[in-house]
Amino acid sequence: MIRCGGRPRGRIDVARTRDIDKQRADLSAATWAVAAERGITGLTVRAVAERAGCTTGLVFHTFPAKRDLVAHARELLLRRAAARLDALEAEAASPREALRAVTVTLLTAPRSGEDEARVWVSFLAAAIADATIAEHHLRGNRALLARLGRLTRAVRPDWDDARHEQLGTGLAALTEGLNALSIFDAESYPAAQQVEAVERMLGQVDED
Amino acid sequence: MIRCGGRPRGRIDVARTRDIDKQRADLSAATWAVAAERGITGLTVRAVAERAGCTTGLVFHTFPAKRDLVAHARELLLRRAAARLDALEAEAASPREALRAVTVTLLTAPRSGEDEARVWVSFLAAAIADATIAEHHLRGNRALLARLGRLTRAVRPDWDDARHEQLGTGLAALTEGLNALSIFDAESYPAAQQVEAVERMLGQVDED
Repeated sequence: MIRCGGRPRGRIDVARTRDIDKQRADLSAATWAVAAERGITGLTVRAVAERAGCTTGLVFHTFPAKRDLVAHARELLLRRAAARLDALEAEAASPREALRAVTVTLLTAPRSGEDEARVWVSFLAAAIADATIAEHHLRGNRALLARLGRLTRAVRPDWDDARHEQLGTGLAALTEGLNALSIFDAESYPAAQQVEAVERMLGQVDED
Repeated sequence: MIRCGGRPRGRIDVARTRDIDKQRADLSAATWAVAAERGITGLTVRAVAERAGCTTGLVFHTFPAKRDLVAHARELLLRRAAARLDALEAEAASPREALRAVTVTLLTAPRSGEDEARVWVSFLAAAIADATIAEHHLRGNRALLARLGRLTRAVRPDWDDARHEQLGTGLAALTEGLNALSIFDAESYPAAQQVEAVERMLGQVDED
């Protein structure tokens, strides 16, 4: 269990700011853990309070409604993913290496990111009945497709748009499917086999 | 709105049996429609009754609890998919043609099966928090992998097991991902482009 940072009252301001930051970080970690375990449906103020070892009142203070918890989990998901992909692109020695690094890291299993896959699948399902979540989802996925398109264009400037789009959507879908299916059946989808499937599709940029 | 078959009482037995069958079919159609629109989370006795134009009491008579509705939607999903795949295999002129037909029909968009994709994604998310649904999901996916393995083995008996498993899980994951992502962004995932992505992966059986 994650403990909410509780210090006695009356400390100096610097310490209080640190307490508030700590408390937000604890609630954030608890939100993530509950979403990963029970899905967005089970992401309630009560469940987050229990996980964080806080009163529900304290959770309400930071996240007044369930929709605020959901928005926070969504924000965490996007922020983590974008930071990871940006770093890989920055470190890569060539466009081909950047494309490979970015695509392989979309797979959650090889980097023990199954929590992320569970939260993501849960958002997918929530998007069916919620227009706001559907809109967020669409924006997030378009940003990924734009990134993949930029990378494949750097590797294969000779290809036409249709060819880039075909590979970009294929890579996004293959990694999406591998993440979703391996959550429930890791045995049938070993991590190394997942990487191999992605590498084979990436091999298209080396053809012709 | 689907209407529940209501006849005046006192008819002969044959007519009554027909009425009961009609009523079950109406409730079944309503269950499917609600699951596709609102996901498993929104699949309630009240929603099904409203959709079918029945009292909730009548729905309770056939499906005493929400879990019975969910099980029924799941059963419909599996039965439809298996019947479609069996028919395609039976009609195919060669193992290669059977493999292509089965794999391409896993894609929902080209055959306007988006409802099915929505129900499926909803079950995926429900499986996160529900062990019974997770178990159903695992069995369904293993049956698909077994079918794909049987088909790729018929086409490429010279391959080793690892090669068959890699292609089978790749095809299952690619179609899964394309179905899930295109629900929310049909524009970025045109049906013809989805088929092309699948054909390219299938092309592996023609290599070497």
